[in-house]
Amino acid sequence: MQSYLDCVPCFVRQALQAARFVTDDVEIHERVVRDVLLTASEMDLSTSPPVMAQHIQRRIRELTGCRDPYREVKQQFNQYALDLLPDLRRRAEQCDDPWEAAIRVAIAGNIIDFGPAAEVTEARVQTAIDESFTMEIDRNQVEAFRSSVEQASTILYLADNAGEIVFDRLLLELIPAEKVVVVVKGGPILNDATRDDAEMAGITEYMEVIDTGSDAPGTILSDCSREFVDRFQTADLIVSKGQANYETLSDVDAEIFFLLKAKCPVIARDMGYDVGDLVVMRGQGKQSFVV
Amino acid sequence: MQSYLDCVPCFVRQALQAARFVTDDVEIHERVVRDVLLTASEMDLSTSPPVMAQHIQRRIRELTGCRDPYREVKQQFNQYALDLLPDLRRRAEQCDDPWEAAIRVAIAGNIIDFGPAAEVTEARVQTAIDESFTMEIDRNQVEAFRSSVEQASTILYLADNAGEIVFDRLLLELIPAEKVVVVVKGGPILNDATRDDAEMAGITEYMEVIDTGSDAPGTILSDCSREFVDRFQTADLIVSKGQANYETLSDVDAEIFFLLKAKCPVIARDMGYDVGDLVVMRGQGKQSFVV
Repeated sequence: MQSYLDCVPCFVRQALQAARFVTDDVEIHERVVRDVLLTASEMDLSTSPPVMAQHIQRRIRELTGCRDPYREVKQQFNQYALDLLPDLRRRAEQCDDPWEAAIRVAIAGNIIDFGPAAEVTEARVQTAIDESFTMEIDRNQVEAFRSSVEQASTILYLADNAGEIVFDRLLLELIPAEKVVVVVKGGPILNDATRDDAEMAGITEYMEVIDTGSDAPGTILSDCSREFVDRFQTADLIVSKGQANYETLSDVDAEIFFLLKAKCPVIARDMGYDVGDLVVMRGQGKQSFVV
Repeated sequence: MQSYLDCVPCFVRQALQAARFVTDDVEIHERVVRDVLLTASEMDLSTSPPVMAQHIQRRIRELTGCRDPYREVKQQFNQYALDLLPDLRRRAEQCDDPWEAAIRVAIAGNIIDFGPAAEVTEARVQTAIDESFTMEIDRNQVEAFRSSVEQASTILYLADNAGEIVFDRLLLELIPAEKVVVVVKGGPILNDATRDDAEMAGITEYMEVIDTGSDAPGTILSDCSREFVDRFQTADLIVSKGQANYETLSDVDAEIFFLLKAKCPVIARDMGYDVGDLVVMRGQGKQSFVV
């Protein structure tokens, strides 16, 4: 997916937020914002928003000297999700269709995303989770996804954010551990999950976890490690969590299911959904992903 | 009020919106956004947000060749408000305190503001008006305002936006016409009311209407005409509608009441209110306004 002019205010807002996570020094905040404005004034709109976000967040790390501005909020939401997990597991198991319930929770967890405009709070996460049990979901896509999971021998599960990755566990636990590999980011970017978060979520104990080899949000295949791309090419099924993975993989020709909560109006429109919706959608990309 | 870094994404968003009102040509949209990003990268944060908005919107008029990008939406919301007015007048008259009801409607009308992030739709206006009859309001400030209006011999009523100026009529009609002068902008800026809108609202028929002599949002006294500043200096009471007037007059030492609906988190915080609140607040500025 290309970038739109609507994405530009979001890049500026994201930059300011990251700077504020690192320091209270308003002079540094100002330097970061002015720098991002200059960078954005020359940006290439034909690339996907995560390309620009990667560039900007690298620059923020340079300007602030902080390797991981979102470290604290990642830990906070991992812990918050872990606290909710036992109760959620019970609720999901009591549903008529625990599989669908697990998908709903995994998607609701995608609300823990510091990329889009809305503020992420524990209260908003709780509301999103509660609502997810009764919200509309495309049952045909859920069934197609279930069938694809059953048929696949190797599944690459592209995790999205810290905190969210804990909620993914209900769904991951319904798939035989030997056929799924969970993928996290190769380095800190926004509040995306890295290996540390997979560990804190308790996933590394019973499942293989690899990383993209890239510090971009989403999965920019041309920026990923050779090892990751090999795994991507040979997997029977890609489970793609979140908006940035959609932005970077929507055009790619592979068996992909996108699972996300629509939060940005540009992406929602691109997918044919409304902001707030729970989305399960089989990919229809046509681009070869050989890189 | 100074500008904050939080204002910067809003400037970019406003610019894109204005460009889209003028043309469907995405190349022009892109040129406008890139230009605004460059300008914003060098902005002086010590000035109030309306100074920057004035600068940006002038540039958009240059780049697009359109004198008044918001002309259509201004007319649309004038007409919409005119259609609602008879029914609102009846509802306000039936209230225990028609004066307070008129203030509530005038403030609710301030939702018709294309400056802040939230989309302005007729449905949102209707909801804001309906809610305004029962929302919390500071009754001490309402009484202080009423008392100040009664004591004043000359009142300058600084109107804010098109559409909103129609809703102001309920309040204006409760003040003897001979002691109030309504002020509109000297030239098109965002969806702020100009003389055309005061005419369409039916205000010029029974009240004196003057303009600021400036095409800035709000009231930047150093940018206003000598004639307007004289009126401002000699008025017993200034009634200031909307956020931009607060941003530009909050520091000024005069008898001012700010009437607005809080829409921007930065301004709400500055005033000690929450986003969505109805605000009536006596000014406490200490700066001399002699210019």
